[in-house]
Amino acid sequence: MTRRHLLGTLAVSALAQSASIRIDAKRLRDSIERLSVFGRASGGGFAGGVSRVAYSEADIAGRAYVISLMQDAGLKPRIDAAGNIVGRRAGAGESLPPVLFGSHIDSVPNGGNFDGDLGSLAAIEVVQTLNESRIATRRPLEVVIWSNEEGYAFNNGIVGSRAAAGRLDPGELDSVWNGMRKSDAIRRIGGAPERIAEARRAPGSFACYLELHIEQGGTLDRAGIPIGVVEGIVAIDRYEAEIRGFANHAGTTPMDERQDALVAASHLTIAVNEIVRREPGRQVGTVGQLDVSPNAPNIVPGLVRMVIELRDLSAARIAALGEQIRASAREIAARTKTEIAIRPAAHHDAALATPEAQKSIEAACGALGLRSRRLPSGAGHDAQAMASLGPMGMIFVPSVGGISHSPKEFTRWEDCACGADVLCQTVLDWAAR
Amino acid sequence: MTRRHLLGTLAVSALAQSASIRIDAKRLRDSIERLSVFGRASGGGFAGGVSRVAYSEADIAGRAYVISLMQDAGLKPRIDAAGNIVGRRAGAGESLPPVLFGSHIDSVPNGGNFDGDLGSLAAIEVVQTLNESRIATRRPLEVVIWSNEEGYAFNNGIVGSRAAAGRLDPGELDSVWNGMRKSDAIRRIGGAPERIAEARRAPGSFACYLELHIEQGGTLDRAGIPIGVVEGIVAIDRYEAEIRGFANHAGTTPMDERQDALVAASHLTIAVNEIVRREPGRQVGTVGQLDVSPNAPNIVPGLVRMVIELRDLSAARIAALGEQIRASAREIAARTKTEIAIRPAAHHDAALATPEAQKSIEAACGALGLRSRRLPSGAGHDAQAMASLGPMGMIFVPSVGGISHSPKEFTRWEDCACGADVLCQTVLDWAAR
Repeated sequence: MTRRHLLGTLAVSALAQSASIRIDAKRLRDSIERLSVFGRASGGGFAGGVSRVAYSEADIAGRAYVISLMQDAGLKPRIDAAGNIVGRRAGAGESLPPVLFGSHIDSVPNGGNFDGDLGSLAAIEVVQTLNESRIATRRPLEVVIWSNEEGYAFNNGIVGSRAAAGRLDPGELDSVWNGMRKSDAIRRIGGAPERIAEARRAPGSFACYLELHIEQGGTLDRAGIPIGVVEGIVAIDRYEAEIRGFANHAGTTPMDERQDALVAASHLTIAVNEIVRREPGRQVGTVGQLDVSPNAPNIVPGLVRMVIELRDLSAARIAALGEQIRASAREIAARTKTEIAIRPAAHHDAALATPEAQKSIEAACGALGLRSRRLPSGAGHDAQAMASLGPMGMIFVPSVGGISHSPKEFTRWEDCACGADVLCQTVLDWAAR
Repeated sequence: MTRRHLLGTLAVSALAQSASIRIDAKRLRDSIERLSVFGRASGGGFAGGVSRVAYSEADIAGRAYVISLMQDAGLKPRIDAAGNIVGRRAGAGESLPPVLFGSHIDSVPNGGNFDGDLGSLAAIEVVQTLNESRIATRRPLEVVIWSNEEGYAFNNGIVGSRAAAGRLDPGELDSVWNGMRKSDAIRRIGGAPERIAEARRAPGSFACYLELHIEQGGTLDRAGIPIGVVEGIVAIDRYEAEIRGFANHAGTTPMDERQDALVAASHLTIAVNEIVRREPGRQVGTVGQLDVSPNAPNIVPGLVRMVIELRDLSAARIAALGEQIRASAREIAARTKTEIAIRPAAHHDAALATPEAQKSIEAACGALGLRSRRLPSGAGHDAQAMASLGPMGMIFVPSVGGISHSPKEFTRWEDCACGADVLCQTVLDWAAR
């Protein structure tokens, strides 16, 4: 009997048991809680959330912890040229395209401990569970922890997965944020920006990309449904607006002679809100970041920089909203005697989940006796970059109160475990194909 | 002949010449240019302005330079308990209350090189000029450089002069800004906060307080008049507003379920502007400082802190405006599902210049052949604290284009010299009384 036959026999025998295996819910919770200390506010606890911005000291420390978990799971992790952490578990058909699954561990400032972390640690937990259950798979498995998903650093996210999809903009590595060049940031986490092309994956090079993630909205929680089957990820347009007025003394400059950049920025912020709400639909628009210069109580603001973000499943709809906002900005600039420049800062296409992957996730829910509902994702995910290369599926679990990107972000531990079980079964389904 | 008689004779003889003496315009310009390097942007020039925020390294370095100038002028400078720099020139009647004059050298971030600097360095220049002209005075002269006039540090200004007037709020020394306690900040510049009461000056302890300053508005420049005779300094109310919404994911939170603190803050910023402009008058209202939290493009802002500032010669008028703004804030909070708390952060009374001092300045202008105009000051000054202790007069010189608190702040060098000459003559007038 050759080694190949042996592995094949093991795999078949194991697959018969696979519907009954469950991930270790306690170990998954433990690893989420342990990861939470990297980026925790000093003196805070788990409930105080996390600030693990990509490329920061906290991110680097959290990555080291995740690498150690992957080593424990026998995944022999490596860091690719884009700073993604990749580990592999051999399959019986070692030359077959693998099943790829994972998420990210970077966070927004003052974010929560489930966004990205759950999907990352559940992916490792799935491998640990398969190891302990002595289950071999036909296809190899690859666990990936993507770098800089959130995009707080450099105002542009899903960096690692875009590199894998060959979708980094030319010149993006030269962008500067907080005095740091993106290429240096990637080098900081062990990447090799000068060889960034080596991080690319070829179309068809994986059987399916799967990602477990918290919903970050309140649909599942309100409905009391434990599993969401993602239909697709919305398109995102991000714009940087720069409002130039004239900085002057707040006591001596008459109201009629002011060119107040903050008054103009306030009108623009309200315009974004009103334009997005004007027509029915699920589109959203946000001014989440705004910086005033010189930002002193006794100086009429001379400069405001702000970021406008628009999201919808329809890219055409948010493009049209962007045009309406530009038109409104021209009117505001004229009325407030300021100059407003709006430039596109980032665009992410909408990405549809593969119907076969949606069905596979639903079959796993059926086998596990879990209710599920299809829904779109209002948040961007690394899965959208992977969808450009091959089949993609995403599993959502409920966010209590729909809260995310906040220390109050929480997903019940039993829901975390259910989501990891669904991920495990879906991985096994695709690994056997 | 006793020594007292000798000094008296010198004084009388000198006074006969005093109307013909002039300060050294070149030396004054030199000292302004030399002071400008402390807090200059790296790679910038004089025209790039200055960031010499009180208690900063730049402030400490600038103070050391000014102390050296005062030493050169024989003023034997000392630092009082509040961090004010005080130098004295003896008079014939050494026990008489002195003539007190000076200004400040701290700046706002990205401020100009004339606000405060001109009055400080002109005061020293006046003493140098009197020394060189061998003019003795009946009254002693005291030059003072007040600490933290601008109040960017700790959001509350004219600190040194308020300490001298016994007008520091209880507990003010314990306030914290940028992780620094105010008492430690004062200690940093050589003050002794534990003995802050020693910085107090008694009512009537000086003959007159005089201050030369740039107008910081455009009235004199537009009218082509070199000297302004200040009638009074406007009252200032400063409020800190805190707008609490709920931080949440910008992609997954429907527009109708948001509690967006920045949308609420934008409505409030516009309300401040509209309420202040609603009725005719010279009142001004400004939101100059606004900070968003967590300030990330993909998070609905959960918290905004902003500072509202109101100014007018009538304290009653700005108090009424403050009430209208509070009422508007209540309506905005209800409409945007946020909480808005507005608390008074600082109040400065209006301060009228002494009629005798205004006449003295006008007489100096007459003797020097300079046109002058009476006008109020829209900016706050250390002179307003001194006005609570004794006679006060202020001399304004034109700000080109009315620009101040900006790197573009400029006062023509010949106007600087004219202002210093008027200060010199006015000092001599009061010193002889």
